[in-house]
Amino acid sequence: MQNWLTDLKTKTPAPFFLFLSLLVFFPPLSSTAHDRLLADSGPPKDPASLTAQTEHSLENTLPPSNHTGQAALVLISLVVILMGAKLGGDVFERLRQPAVLGELLFGVLLGNLSILGFHGMNYLKTNEVISALAEIGVIFLLFEVGLESNIKDMMEVGVSSFLVATVGVICPMILGWWISSFFLPESGPLVHVFIGATLCATSVGITARVLKDLGKTNEKEARIILGAAVIDDVMGLVVLAAVSGIIKAADRGAIGVSATEIGIIILKATVFFVASIWLGSKIAPQMFRLASLLRIRGMLLVTSISFCFSLSYLASLIDLAPIVGAFAAGLILDPVHYQDLQRRENNGIEELISPIASFLVPIFFVLMGVRVELRTFANPSILTFAMVLTAVAVVGKQACSLGVLEKGLDRISVGIGMIPRGEVGLIFASMGSTLLLKGEPVIISSTYSAVVIMVILTTLVTPPVLKISLERGEKIKRRNGGKQLNSPMVD
Amino acid sequence: MQNWLTDLKTKTPAPFFLFLSLLVFFPPLSSTAHDRLLADSGPPKDPASLTAQTEHSLENTLPPSNHTGQAALVLISLVVILMGAKLGGDVFERLRQPAVLGELLFGVLLGNLSILGFHGMNYLKTNEVISALAEIGVIFLLFEVGLESNIKDMMEVGVSSFLVATVGVICPMILGWWISSFFLPESGPLVHVFIGATLCATSVGITARVLKDLGKTNEKEARIILGAAVIDDVMGLVVLAAVSGIIKAADRGAIGVSATEIGIIILKATVFFVASIWLGSKIAPQMFRLASLLRIRGMLLVTSISFCFSLSYLASLIDLAPIVGAFAAGLILDPVHYQDLQRRENNGIEELISPIASFLVPIFFVLMGVRVELRTFANPSILTFAMVLTAVAVVGKQACSLGVLEKGLDRISVGIGMIPRGEVGLIFASMGSTLLLKGEPVIISSTYSAVVIMVILTTLVTPPVLKISLERGEKIKRRNGGKQLNSPMVD
Repeated sequence: MQNWLTDLKTKTPAPFFLFLSLLVFFPPLSSTAHDRLLADSGPPKDPASLTAQTEHSLENTLPPSNHTGQAALVLISLVVILMGAKLGGDVFERLRQPAVLGELLFGVLLGNLSILGFHGMNYLKTNEVISALAEIGVIFLLFEVGLESNIKDMMEVGVSSFLVATVGVICPMILGWWISSFFLPESGPLVHVFIGATLCATSVGITARVLKDLGKTNEKEARIILGAAVIDDVMGLVVLAAVSGIIKAADRGAIGVSATEIGIIILKATVFFVASIWLGSKIAPQMFRLASLLRIRGMLLVTSISFCFSLSYLASLIDLAPIVGAFAAGLILDPVHYQDLQRRENNGIEELISPIASFLVPIFFVLMGVRVELRTFANPSILTFAMVLTAVAVVGKQACSLGVLEKGLDRISVGIGMIPRGEVGLIFASMGSTLLLKGEPVIISSTYSAVVIMVILTTLVTPPVLKISLERGEKIKRRNGGKQLNSPMVD
Repeated sequence: MQNWLTDLKTKTPAPFFLFLSLLVFFPPLSSTAHDRLLADSGPPKDPASLTAQTEHSLENTLPPSNHTGQAALVLISLVVILMGAKLGGDVFERLRQPAVLGELLFGVLLGNLSILGFHGMNYLKTNEVISALAEIGVIFLLFEVGLESNIKDMMEVGVSSFLVATVGVICPMILGWWISSFFLPESGPLVHVFIGATLCATSVGITARVLKDLGKTNEKEARIILGAAVIDDVMGLVVLAAVSGIIKAADRGAIGVSATEIGIIILKATVFFVASIWLGSKIAPQMFRLASLLRIRGMLLVTSISFCFSLSYLASLIDLAPIVGAFAAGLILDPVHYQDLQRRENNGIEELISPIASFLVPIFFVLMGVRVELRTFANPSILTFAMVLTAVAVVGKQACSLGVLEKGLDRISVGIGMIPRGEVGLIFASMGSTLLLKGEPVIISSTYSAVVIMVILTTLVTPPVLKISLERGEKIKRRNGGKQLNSPMVD
């Protein structure tokens, strides 16, 4: 056994092994066992019987067979999702691509097995528990991203970051709007705005990861990119809030949207951010001081999670996405606030949140992939739309280089570093698919697929191109003998 | 503000502050906002429209308003559950009681607010997502408990632990059976057996925690108690598997249960344990070796969780509780198996699982409390039943002292240390409430409440009594001048 393994190891690529072990752990998708599980988690009871159930209390809280079957189905689904996410992530890291791409594509594979005649995984698209876990996962992700920076860091990166972010939000949005009105002439202007909005936010996670992999995190250009990515995340979320608010208002019957209404919505989103950050910074230290009065262990984790979930809840109460609140919560919390608790528990918030995020975040990305309908790609006009959308997404962010005020920096690399769209674009798209406008979702299945292709391509294209651009920039810097560089093509 | 706070701090007990901050974070349970959320998560659509939905794919996977409302409701519920659990835990730790009691009682409070005319929390009893999170939580708890010991440790504690465990399982079961047939004469023998079974397993968590709080973890008595608690956990789970299997068989129409059938079920449970532990110990090192071939981060956590969930799934496939598999998975995994990954990721499995458990486990205990119907306590016969059940639970475990073979040990303390019933008893009770026998749940609402009272009282009674007994034992040992002690009352 051992020899056989060592023997094979030298000849077979590693991912193959994990795929084998995946099969070992996933034997029961044979038709019978699986059908039984599906039947168990099966059709919801009719409303009348459910109402009757709530009359009694305990014995009906857990519908017997349904319960066990549902739990087992969720467990084995999570095994498949987690192992598949890691396998996909590893393959793509070996190809020097971000792991998130592998998770996404594994999801696409899983969600489109029905093309090959296997319909056993379709329940993933509708399972409420897995969908809830994914949503809690993305809340933890944005909380983590928020924790990675703080309000002071955002102030310090200064004017350049802000200008880069602003240009990088406006240009792709206008281009996206224009392209959308060209490709989807029957849709209303709000749909075009929404599609434009999906193009605005750079993915902090992917950008940071790529710069880290290239060992460039401390270059001046890198700091501008990271600062701008954080700011345009916030701007993107404000845009999302504004656009969804406008769409919800329009759907409630408001014919046309007045500038005042737009103003109010933008104001509401901005006020939420400013107020939650300002009030939050005041409340957070008091909150942790109160929490540290409790002697029980685990207060740091539970207090942070509760703070994050509370802001997410408040955000959703005023029609913002819960993740907006989670991100704000992450920005607000600062090690200074909780050093007492941190000393007591020997762990910072980030170390405590990290395992939870490792567990839940891949569920989100795999599920995002599962929801991609490959069948829609058969439509050449959608494919064309996706390619044009990608081109617009790349070109739109190149205007960012105009926002760099400092002389002698590698502006091209800044523009390229802003290209990757990731979680935020996907979140926009999935939010758009839940927003109704005259009974139609704003982002229909085909548009969603086009946005996902755009995310995949922008994420795929960045690492190699950014690498080449940074190396080129360095060569010029060296040729100038340590003098500051004026990139000939940009200045 | 600061002065006011310092001033108040000196006069007001700390938990009061957390309760205040809980109110700050939980303002929106005002009727309107809450009703809106409830309406959003409201009655399921009729099956016909759901079937129609699956025809389309993406745009219907997330039913719009339902989705957002459900997510927000889950988030704020988790805040209440987590903060309440910690607050309750802190209060009970200050009273030198185990924290789990506080979580349980907070749940009881939350679930019985309708007695005070507030029905706003009743959705907690039926919310599918929160129930699923609780169930994943208890899987992580048993996984953690399994991780704390390993197969070798269990072998070493030897014959005494095994005898203590065996006596401690058999006596309370027989007494419980007898008492149940006295109090519930109309119920069949299977119900009596099940109630007996809820009495058999000592709570490893609570026992260990109490011994740790008293600084006695390394006494010989403590090691026998801990070893026996682990073994009787396994025995309890085998009993649970056997009893539920028999009940399921009986419910499927098998009139009477033959000795062969009982034998087969016990065999199945035992074989699952032995096979999963034997095969698992062979597979686990290979599995981690394969996992370590992937270069991506987070493999240790994801592989462990997948292993745990896979065994839980396999257990549920052969009609065992998923937690049986989770516990087995924990026992099997050993640091030796994954030292490569541990070195790479600077963290052991236990440190990685711990934050996830801190997040999810309290949800389980609070929800267990929520499901207690205080109204059933109004029935004096149920209260009497609960008191007698508690007496039987305490007395039954005192026979354990007969299992201690070594001379000169404090046998009384061993018997007392085995008293607390915790998670396993509650799990039995909640499983019993989902098992149907001729259309009736095996554990009806009133019996469930009696079992919970028993768990609360055995857990409450142990810490002070064990403390007194251990101090008394020590005094006798000292009086005998360092010679080994023969406890006069036991030998």
